[in-house]
Amino acid sequence: MAGEIREGDYVLLYLDERRSYMVRVERDKVLHTHKGFVKVGDLIGREFGVRVKSSMGVEFIAFRPGVRDYVYKSTRGTQIIYPKDIALIILLGGIQPGSHVVEAGTGVGALTTALASYVKPNGRVYSYEVRSDFLEIARKNLERAGVLGYVELKNKDITQGIDESDVDAVVLDMATPWLVVPHAYKALKGSGSFISFSPTIDQVVKTVEELKANGFANIETIECFIRRIRVERGKTRPETLMTGHTGYMVFARKALKGVE
Amino acid sequence: MAGEIREGDYVLLYLDERRSYMVRVERDKVLHTHKGFVKVGDLIGREFGVRVKSSMGVEFIAFRPGVRDYVYKSTRGTQIIYPKDIALIILLGGIQPGSHVVEAGTGVGALTTALASYVKPNGRVYSYEVRSDFLEIARKNLERAGVLGYVELKNKDITQGIDESDVDAVVLDMATPWLVVPHAYKALKGSGSFISFSPTIDQVVKTVEELKANGFANIETIECFIRRIRVERGKTRPETLMTGHTGYMVFARKALKGVE
Amino acid sequence: MAGEIREGDYVLLYLDERRSYMVRVERDKVLHTHKGFVKVGDLIGREFGVRVKSSMGVEFIAFRPGVRDYVYKSTRGTQIIYPKDIALIILLGGIQPGSHVVEAGTGVGALTTALASYVKPNGRVYSYEVRSDFLEIARKNLERAGVLGYVELKNKDITQGIDESDVDAVVLDMATPWLVVPHAYKALKGSGSFISFSPTIDQVVKTVEELKANGFANIETIECFIRRIRVERGKTRPETLMTGHTGYMVFARKALKGVE
Amino acid sequence: MAGEIREGDYVLLYLDERRSYMVRVERDKVLHTHKGFVKVGDLIGREFGVRVKSSMGVEFIAFRPGVRDYVYKSTRGTQIIYPKDIALIILLGGIQPGSHVVEAGTGVGALTTALASYVKPNGRVYSYEVRSDFLEIARKNLERAGVLGYVELKNKDITQGIDESDVDAVVLDMATPWLVVPHAYKALKGSGSFISFSPTIDQVVKTVEELKANGFANIETIECFIRRIRVERGKTRPETLMTGHTGYMVFARKALKGVE
Repeated sequence: MAGEIREGDYVLLYLDERRSYMVRVERDKVLHTHKGFVKVGDLIGREFGVRVKSSMGVEFIAFRPGVRDYVYKSTRGTQIIYPKDIALIILLGGIQPGSHVVEAGTGVGALTTALASYVKPNGRVYSYEVRSDFLEIARKNLERAGVLGYVELKNKDITQGIDESDVDAVVLDMATPWLVVPHAYKALKGSGSFISFSPTIDQVVKTVEELKANGFANIETIECFIRRIRVERGKTRPETLMTGHTGYMVFARKALKGVE
Repeated sequence: MAGEIREGDYVLLYLDERRSYMVRVERDKVLHTHKGFVKVGDLIGREFGVRVKSSMGVEFIAFRPGVRDYVYKSTRGTQIIYPKDIALIILLGGIQPGSHVVEAGTGVGALTTALASYVKPNGRVYSYEVRSDFLEIARKNLERAGVLGYVELKNKDITQGIDESDVDAVVLDMATPWLVVPHAYKALKGSGSFISFSPTIDQVVKTVEELKANGFANIETIECFIRRIRVERGKTRPETLMTGHTGYMVFARKALKGVE
Repeated sequence: MAGEIREGDYVLLYLDERRSYMVRVERDKVLHTHKGFVKVGDLIGREFGVRVKSSMGVEFIAFRPGVRDYVYKSTRGTQIIYPKDIALIILLGGIQPGSHVVEAGTGVGALTTALASYVKPNGRVYSYEVRSDFLEIARKNLERAGVLGYVELKNKDITQGIDESDVDAVVLDMATPWLVVPHAYKALKGSGSFISFSPTIDQVVKTVEELKANGFANIETIECFIRRIRVERGKTRPETLMTGHTGYMVFARKALKGVE
Repeated sequence: MAGEIREGDYVLLYLDERRSYMVRVERDKVLHTHKGFVKVGDLIGREFGVRVKSSMGVEFIAFRPGVRDYVYKSTRGTQIIYPKDIALIILLGGIQPGSHVVEAGTGVGALTTALASYVKPNGRVYSYEVRSDFLEIARKNLERAGVLGYVELKNKDITQGIDESDVDAVVLDMATPWLVVPHAYKALKGSGSFISFSPTIDQVVKTVEELKANGFANIETIECFIRRIRVERGKTRPETLMTGHTGYMVFARKALKGVE
């Protein structure tokens, strides 16, 4: 049955909003937390969503990890791009099951994981990264998330060119996206999507100028805020702290040059 | 070749940020706009992304419509749920290629179109709607977007129960989501996602209370703002007007009852 | 008694959230609106806050105008700076009753009205404007708001220099605030406030660079959003449309040069 | 000369954006910081804005504290209401030099300090607080800010009634503002302002209902966000963390009952 936890699966042991643990299920594994230990092996044969108690009697829930969880857990300590931004990149960028997508830089594979999860089973992600140490981490993260098979990791500098052609989208999360614009134009099929994520407004300005100069159209720049709400009858209010900025997203579509 | 426009395809004739036209390509079709007419039939055999001139010499670009475009065009005049919210529902709700998703209400099929586009080719959307006139519009919108084959449209009241079981997600965009919570719990597989979109805070409070009472965990309520930036060297600034509210999104996961 | 409406007073005839009329009370005056006419002269001797009916039986309320109302009514059609921004400029800029403030450009006097209202009765606003036609409008707006006596209107180009010295604050709402920074430094007393309001990020960058180069410290740039909430039991929700951008505000304080 | 630091003055010893110290200047006083000590007595006779070095050679600037600084320093550890909200309360609430304002609860006097700073020299603040220990702290904070003379501190429960009448504004920052609405109506002069600040939406709903039931008009509820921008050529971007919620502000004006 689809919902049963098997040896080798990953589970998200959820304690509360702020604390959860991604663990591979192995027969004799024990997870040690400040709330006591959890016998992970005992989860085998249970259904995802099961509640278990730690040695200290504290309840954990064994959720099946989703894309968002794999993304979060990939980026421990290096998080720049957030699930909210990834969601917009994918949907507003028109990336779908079956899409062929070029991405750079891979980093630790957070965005790559999400892209692969949404182009599968027939699409493919070609992910460029100059740092081979990052590629190794990314490979592990992709494998854990079960999507390595949909990704080609490339230890190459994308500012020197893109090997692929006729791709549906080029997605950039790197310091100098404007240097990739002419390569992206060549690699994209007509009407294909260019998407770039950048923390500073200066990167955005340079990228948009380059897009205009290179035949892209429908250029649009946005930023996205998420506000969390504490919901409790009689006490409902937004949370005090919020992430005020992650980065700007630039979207554009390849228009052919010359008018027919 | 994948990028060639064929008879029967839909194209998005893009004029500028605010104006674009979704048209089915037919041999003798002509699109009349206030900027002159465009011979749509002449697009046959061209590549998506091609620039064409109207009879008044104004340039249009023939983009291939994406999920977002189909969503926008579905909701002419009834728009409640926006692509930004849909993107978050899908990614944060863990909906993926292969997912089985129950949705209500179908409305004109905007959210349905997006859900179907991301569960394909192996997943399925079961979409409930009490109003049969809406279902007819939804059917046409889904057909146009090429995803009707992944959807089962159901002329039923979801507050009376859900036929499906072991589904990955239940997504609600309706006036009384709290009435569906117990049915959603039964229909979901363990660790499955409940997602509800509501314009008012009162709907959110009722829904969250019902989720807590029915064994859901990891309950989270958010709202999302998008701000568009006008990018132009020396004049870059956010746009003056912005959508300040569409709705709140509530996410939760099914935890099993009882502790093992 | 303080609350009685007298001939010559201004009243704000309030119809609803979107429609209100600023009128000078005169014995035989009649205000014509699309909801019928109101005999303004009949207000004489009534208390502010009184409800009156128009000839069509529609209720209006005769409020006493506040700073905010004078600001709104000044800027009909040219509004750039909003009450929310003015409020922050005054409080975060440390402007108080008794402050001496240099301002540019006057424009139609919206910000000038507010500054004068808060430096009175012992402070003074020196307001620079190159366009004499604007100064005439500003003079009328200030007179209507009853604060002309606290303002010196100057038909001068502030980028050429500031006549005053030892002022508490310099407030700029003009296209090239960075050109005024050295003059502002000279005009301010030690620890005095520099405040500039600009719609584009490029203006902000130039201004901040100039502030750093000219001995200012505690430099801070902010933007402010206001969201309006529709409050009604069972239907409470933020308003759909919102102003997403008016301008950035830069605050700085004059630090003396050289370290003692 | 106005800008000279004298014995007994308060100075804000500013280190950087996050760290500053409010100190009373006394002849032999020394301020000890983790960046070394500063001889505060040496500031006597210097001009506000002077830069001084600590024993470790680190530069501090001796700014003259403004309203905002007094507010910040009052609320160490109990901060609920922020300068941004106070600024809007004052300007949108129509509070001005000369206004008579009733306030509750006093708390540690943060909002009181600001109100007093803007009604002076001819206005007055009547501030209600049930906890006498808070009143003692408030008294010290008001004295330090030099505005105690404009405030009457009242150890009374405002939900039992308001002693004053014909006041220009009633400002509430307390748990149950709706209980004060009828008293506020009686205390206000016609057209006077009711303003209430509340963290939760439930408080807002109750207050607005009570305002509608008690003859108030022009009722408006807002929330305010401030986003800080890091400005540096080539690297300009909003700050990552932001305060996502402090509280909602409800504004209303007293309309007289009955239509004339």
